[in-house]
Amino acid sequence: MAAANGSACGGGGVDKEKEEFKQIYGVLKEELLRDPAFEFTDSSRQWIDRMLDYNVPGGKCNRGLSVVDSYKLLKGTNVLSQEDMFLASTLGWCVEWLQAYFLVLDDIMDDSHTRRGQPCWFRVPQVGSIAINDGVILRNHITRMLRLHFRGKLYYADLLDLFNEVEFKTASGQLLDLITTHEGEKDLNKYNIGVHRRIVQYKTSYYSFYLPVACALLLSGEDLTKYGAVEDILVKMGIYFQVQDDYLDCYGDPKFIGKIGTDIEDYKCSWLVVQALERADESQKSVLFENYGKKDPACVAKVKSLYRELNLEAVFLDYENESYKKLIADIEAQPSIAVQNVLKSFLHKIYKRQK
Amino acid sequence: MAAANGSACGGGGVDKEKEEFKQIYGVLKEELLRDPAFEFTDSSRQWIDRMLDYNVPGGKCNRGLSVVDSYKLLKGTNVLSQEDMFLASTLGWCVEWLQAYFLVLDDIMDDSHTRRGQPCWFRVPQVGSIAINDGVILRNHITRMLRLHFRGKLYYADLLDLFNEVEFKTASGQLLDLITTHEGEKDLNKYNIGVHRRIVQYKTSYYSFYLPVACALLLSGEDLTKYGAVEDILVKMGIYFQVQDDYLDCYGDPKFIGKIGTDIEDYKCSWLVVQALERADESQKSVLFENYGKKDPACVAKVKSLYRELNLEAVFLDYENESYKKLIADIEAQPSIAVQNVLKSFLHKIYKRQK
Repeated sequence: MAAANGSACGGGGVDKEKEEFKQIYGVLKEELLRDPAFEFTDSSRQWIDRMLDYNVPGGKCNRGLSVVDSYKLLKGTNVLSQEDMFLASTLGWCVEWLQAYFLVLDDIMDDSHTRRGQPCWFRVPQVGSIAINDGVILRNHITRMLRLHFRGKLYYADLLDLFNEVEFKTASGQLLDLITTHEGEKDLNKYNIGVHRRIVQYKTSYYSFYLPVACALLLSGEDLTKYGAVEDILVKMGIYFQVQDDYLDCYGDPKFIGKIGTDIEDYKCSWLVVQALERADESQKSVLFENYGKKDPACVAKVKSLYRELNLEAVFLDYENESYKKLIADIEAQPSIAVQNVLKSFLHKIYKRQK
Repeated sequence: MAAANGSACGGGGVDKEKEEFKQIYGVLKEELLRDPAFEFTDSSRQWIDRMLDYNVPGGKCNRGLSVVDSYKLLKGTNVLSQEDMFLASTLGWCVEWLQAYFLVLDDIMDDSHTRRGQPCWFRVPQVGSIAINDGVILRNHITRMLRLHFRGKLYYADLLDLFNEVEFKTASGQLLDLITTHEGEKDLNKYNIGVHRRIVQYKTSYYSFYLPVACALLLSGEDLTKYGAVEDILVKMGIYFQVQDDYLDCYGDPKFIGKIGTDIEDYKCSWLVVQALERADESQKSVLFENYGKKDPACVAKVKSLYRELNLEAVFLDYENESYKKLIADIEAQPSIAVQNVLKSFLHKIYKRQK
């Protein structure tokens, strides 16, 4: 259920937009390091500088860049004024900062080892549990950036509400994941499609799919209360994305996805195990209960063999086709073509993805 | 540098105001457990219920109650309408929730064992590192409560800004404390009065002294930008309060303060060690460098004996008298008698305190 890994933000293509987006990271960081709300000492300023470079810009920046892309589609132009580009990118970076905050804390709670090809921040020498406070500071940087650049806007309170509500949903989804997956003894009876849907919807969907578009809508002067259907579509898309993630963990090519899946070993509440539980007869269920969540490769093999018996690949392909059809129908029922374009752009980035 | 312990909120006197305040905790908790922004499962609702009761209402509630008291003084009445009492108490509880959030996370970072006479939350069986996410949820509850009860107020954005700015200052002070006290090898050369002042000012003063009064001012319809001098006085009062805390850790009566101080053993950047470093000659400095921050009672005794040699008790009493005189002069320069009353009420609660 962890977010996908990836190469550094803008590290691949020599895309002008990505370059500009990355430059704005530098500007925002400098502002934060000169924030008059705290009297930095040299060592605390150096700490924040290093902590930011370590945790914020090292991902693919899909979420952050999608704020800029969505805003362009909503405006119907590919060229933004310098000010508009800066504001859209700032909101994009706020989404990236939010993600960094979640990842720094999640890695501690999951006792993870690596993230984006380097040791998790709390595993860096001299960091340890200070990473918890660094997570808090990452969250606080969002409100500092919003205050500095959006305080005078009519939608300022809506923007704060948006980030607050999305953070609350994400933390609630994370709680559900933690108490379902980690707390107490392992018990597959706790896993079902309702629990799976709630975990992925709240833990991932809102901040990864809804939040970037909602930022772009606010920036365009739109009233979010009129976009309930758009929220709904994006949240469903996020659920579909996470189901793909669960599928690729088992069936994806490690060369493409950049890691070897361990959801079975890790006792994850994966879409696959939930489907297996729904379809298994009593004897197949006991295979799952005996082998799921164990490191032993023989146990993993038995689970995978059961997945094959139950034809989960076909179940997934069906799910994928059905999801796509429903999403396209919902999107095309939207009155605004610009909004349709935003939603289709998201959907086509993820449909049938191999990584 | 930890916040003082204390008996349960309203546990002592049979004060009507405290009783009312406590009842409002129950109302707020029920609202949070029925928050439609998350689809609770039974087990996640039970988790939050228990987590709140364990962490939020068990302190003295000085900070929370001081919002209500300050608001009454600003209004010049001892009797509030039911709605005003509810709103003032809600803001008071937001301050208490903020404190609970800091304490839950600080206890993990400090590897503490007990808090308010019970095991720290993360030490409770089945909790562990889930406490990190619980801390995040505590912070998020504040924005949920503010949104539910203050969204329509003219000062809503100011209220969000206030909590955001105070949280940022607190987390920055905590960072400074962590990297000064815990990071790398022990080095007393890092300790001086400037570092001490910054740690206590940012880590404690803003949220404990400024925040409750600022909440009461906003509730009274005041513009906080006109109250820079009031902020300044409250922040100074908070520094004085923390210096008392450092003094009482060594010189207070354990019967009164409810614990046996361990700042010397814990290598704390205490006001006392900073004063000692300023006054010590070379040979006295080497006594400090050799004995400060060691568990051995003989080392602690040597540090305490040096404090006596340097007459730190008298240095503190001087500091206390000087601080009081300056604070009173600053308070009496305030144009509003109601504001003077608020500030004097704070000062008289802490002046010459023994616990």
